[in-house]
Amino acid sequence: MKEHFRPVALEHASRLINHGPTVLVTSAAGAQRNVMAAAWSMPVEFTPPRIAVVIDKRTLTRELVMASGAFGLCIPGAGLADLTYAVGSASGRDGDKFARHGIVATAGPVLGVPLIEAGCAAWLECRLIREPHSEEAYDTCFAEVVAAAADDRIFAQGHWSVRDDNEALHTIHHLGGGNFARACGAFLAKTL
Amino acid sequence: MKEHFRPVALEHASRLINHGPTVLVTSAAGAQRNVMAAAWSMPVEFTPPRIAVVIDKRTLTRELVMASGAFGLCIPGAGLADLTYAVGSASGRDGDKFARHGIVATAGPVLGVPLIEAGCAAWLECRLIREPHSEEAYDTCFAEVVAAAADDRIFAQGHWSVRDDNEALHTIHHLGGGNFARACGAFLAKTL
Repeated sequence: MKEHFRPVALEHASRLINHGPTVLVTSAAGAQRNVMAAAWSMPVEFTPPRIAVVIDKRTLTRELVMASGAFGLCIPGAGLADLTYAVGSASGRDGDKFARHGIVATAGPVLGVPLIEAGCAAWLECRLIREPHSEEAYDTCFAEVVAAAADDRIFAQGHWSVRDDNEALHTIHHLGGGNFARACGAFLAKTL
Repeated sequence: MKEHFRPVALEHASRLINHGPTVLVTSAAGAQRNVMAAAWSMPVEFTPPRIAVVIDKRTLTRELVMASGAFGLCIPGAGLADLTYAVGSASGRDGDKFARHGIVATAGPVLGVPLIEAGCAAWLECRLIREPHSEEAYDTCFAEVVAAAADDRIFAQGHWSVRDDNEALHTIHHLGGGNFARACGAFLAKTL
């Protein structure tokens, strides 16, 4: 695990994507691996930690996820926005995107999924829960989170800490067409 | 429709929640109506526009949605963060939250769903697609968007315009425990 990355307790894993960041979906099967961007993911359960993510059935990622039964959700920081858009705009069938962009992958602790740490705020290693109908009708894949970790400069003790001094790790939120917003200006809501 | 609110073309509806904002789920059946906060929603299809949202089976909202087959997703601006947290922390079974907080509801154009415009950046009126297994196993409700509208000060011609001068309408993203980030600092990714 890279410097600053620390394991996240599974009961806190849902918080990593609770606020709707754009994620990188990583996968591998046989000799192939891939990384794509996905704006459409969400938690669906706290305990056991479960998530849903939309993975188009025409993508290489979908093929690898179905073959391996596993994938990663890596949460890029703002410093990776250009890379996120790039891997969201090209297919892994046209060549290995890790190699093309010099992305270093580390193996997930439970399933060996390729995970990205450099420039990411966090990752979740996920085991697919087969749901053929949702996968077919809505491209929606459900999964259980089996391991998670985060960069302690922005997420520690189960909480995000979004500050002016860690802007490169702020999560990014795709508005469409390559336009992103950052999650910033964090505040605590008042009790009415 | 309130001043500044304009219809959003259905093919652009997914962009309203593409970036993962926390939403207000509105519903009504018989003499009851309700509004709750939900951090867990996402688009699942562009055309026809379809979305998924997690609505706990123990909530009044779930009961009203199942009875009516419809709900709204209203997207609160930052100026409504305290209200969002409040309606996310109390049950509609303990009294009408619209009345308690002085929330004005307008009737959706297609299904008559109560929708909130004042202080919101946008809304989507949704028709439930019954999926008993996903609803039961993951509290995940799928729906088709049948109408949408947005405040043209922050979303116009199919695009978000997140600027310093419309901060009160910036979407909010729940980090957990009443902590929110705003979507801000918008930028266009470079092509690598």
